[in-house]
Amino acid sequence: MLSPGHYQILTTLSRGGPCSRTDLARTLGVSKASISGLVRDLLNQNILCEQELVFGVGRPSVSLAVRADAASFIGVSLQQDPAVLVLTDLHGSVLARVEVPRAEDPDLCVESLVAAIDQLRAAGGASTERLSGVGVALPGFVSHDRHTCVASTALGWRNVDIGAALTERTGLPTWVENDANALILGEQLFGPLRGSPDFSMVFVSYGIGCAHIVNRRLLRGNAGGAGEISHAPIAIEGFGAAPCRCGNKGCLETVASLLAITNAARRAGLPEEIGPLAALAAKGQPDALALLHRAGSALGLATAQLIQMLDPSHVVVMLDPALHDSVFAHALRKEADSHILHREGPGTMVTFRDFAPENFASGAASLAARYFISGSDEL
Amino acid sequence: MLSPGHYQILTTLSRGGPCSRTDLARTLGVSKASISGLVRDLLNQNILCEQELVFGVGRPSVSLAVRADAASFIGVSLQQDPAVLVLTDLHGSVLARVEVPRAEDPDLCVESLVAAIDQLRAAGGASTERLSGVGVALPGFVSHDRHTCVASTALGWRNVDIGAALTERTGLPTWVENDANALILGEQLFGPLRGSPDFSMVFVSYGIGCAHIVNRRLLRGNAGGAGEISHAPIAIEGFGAAPCRCGNKGCLETVASLLAITNAARRAGLPEEIGPLAALAAKGQPDALALLHRAGSALGLATAQLIQMLDPSHVVVMLDPALHDSVFAHALRKEADSHILHREGPGTMVTFRDFAPENFASGAASLAARYFISGSDEL
Repeated sequence: MLSPGHYQILTTLSRGGPCSRTDLARTLGVSKASISGLVRDLLNQNILCEQELVFGVGRPSVSLAVRADAASFIGVSLQQDPAVLVLTDLHGSVLARVEVPRAEDPDLCVESLVAAIDQLRAAGGASTERLSGVGVALPGFVSHDRHTCVASTALGWRNVDIGAALTERTGLPTWVENDANALILGEQLFGPLRGSPDFSMVFVSYGIGCAHIVNRRLLRGNAGGAGEISHAPIAIEGFGAAPCRCGNKGCLETVASLLAITNAARRAGLPEEIGPLAALAAKGQPDALALLHRAGSALGLATAQLIQMLDPSHVVVMLDPALHDSVFAHALRKEADSHILHREGPGTMVTFRDFAPENFASGAASLAARYFISGSDEL
Repeated sequence: MLSPGHYQILTTLSRGGPCSRTDLARTLGVSKASISGLVRDLLNQNILCEQELVFGVGRPSVSLAVRADAASFIGVSLQQDPAVLVLTDLHGSVLARVEVPRAEDPDLCVESLVAAIDQLRAAGGASTERLSGVGVALPGFVSHDRHTCVASTALGWRNVDIGAALTERTGLPTWVENDANALILGEQLFGPLRGSPDFSMVFVSYGIGCAHIVNRRLLRGNAGGAGEISHAPIAIEGFGAAPCRCGNKGCLETVASLLAITNAARRAGLPEEIGPLAALAAKGQPDALALLHRAGSALGLATAQLIQMLDPSHVVVMLDPALHDSVFAHALRKEADSHILHREGPGTMVTFRDFAPENFASGAASLAARYFISGSDEL
């Protein structure tokens, strides 16, 4: 059993990277003697390791690091069909991966996930001896205790306690989170923006998801509904307020989601697949260009609104690889840039990354990893 | 001198209201004996007082409260011309008030504020014996250490260290904050939403300001620019993208600010004063109705975007009293409601309050009060 002191050390090393006992003692404001005792426990349990680093001309300074193999975790993404499951280590590296059809019936879904988790355990071999927990990312609202899916339109679920069902069947503690939230929590723990106190992520899938880290913490909002950029009211030139599946009109997802793009392409007699559509636009086909330009501009406008409202250091936009260097991405950046108020100090960086279902699964795994590191859901 | 333990007690009582020694000990996770010692110090220094409350049939339970007269503070609002200064107690009640013309020259401004502070000290009498600090709220960007105005278009200031200047002249520690941020920090410490972890405030003045509390903390953003709703890109039916003083087009403030409303009224041959204009709209004059409807709808759209993005428990909109029960307010609420995605759990409450320059001055005073209570800028 780890004590609060052990967790403080793990949290500090995980946030800031390897450092010496002296630096740890200074950061945590405790004596080097008590740090040494706690570190010894963590070394004995193979959770920390020592790395010899030579700085300058003095004696080598030994720095401490969290071992990647200190524990492993399973992450489940129900963001799309098929569901993706990954086994990760404590650094977020994916050790094994499996896909299963995403069943909408909750019992069938649990059944197939349990089978897939068994597959991952077999594939992971020795690394699963320290398997510590499961995380689930899904498109929908999740209860505050991270056990129950309160409502998911995409899955057709209401009050499905998938956390308890998986725990009962696997014997592993399970955390459930909204897909966008899991994604950004994974980035905060494992990703390049680890350590950034204020950043946002947006992803373009069949819908559009969004989440924010503010003051180093997830912005959940009052009822867990923060980040609903998908239904932000948008109006851009040449785009009437189209009805949305949520019942409103003019929502961002009616013009910029993959579903909206596919529907518009079909109506215009263009290829519905995003790759061929983007290729056509790249060749200058005017209808394909207009469609992707409009979609990218709409997301750019929403991105500008996000930046004005929150002033994050980064907005990471996750796009289908075919859209990465397309008129969609260029229009997005141009529209965002043209609407952002010039500020004193550094501006927000908008960056693009490839959308990959694994990212949601890794994000889900990070929920369990976060608990391993901090002994609570906060880091 | 107070210790961290004393500050913990003051912070707890200020956040949660009066409670007993037993409850304090439980909340802070320390022994009742050590709480009693710390409380004794605070009683001796006249910072806390005891209140006898009888619950049920047992012996009376003595609860502890922070004394309103434990300290007093001066708050300065440069949000509008004239500048407003207030003297408040530790509960945020205004003990004295004075107005002075808002000088744009920094030296003249400091000069007139120092004179006004002397006036307040004279007016406040005995309550200023424990005067503990000054806060300044201004329309613009402020340095992270809350000393310097980095840039203010309204004041024409760049890098004006008004905090240091006032401290030098008054001998009082001084904190400087953006006007919207000061407003919401005042609400968090003194107002009806004290204790709410996630809420936003919007005010309609010559410009439009906005600030957010997220996870109980001010959302400053990466470069202190969060809450810039005023320059959020807005497009509503019948409203072309008008050029804004920021250099962009279609910003919210080009249609919904008092400046925009006044300008549009002048162009339409309508009264420029907001009172007569609202009265005309209330009588059904079609141009006045259209103008205020458009302005309110635009702010409603921006409010919907805010709610979708952040999911606060409340959005408090501060309006000129003439707009309170007008088509502006009704259109705002209608447009916001019609664009908010139905959520599981409680929805965001949009409420209206009268815009009063004193609120900015009280908010500014709360910066100093916050420091008195917590020994730091965080509460």
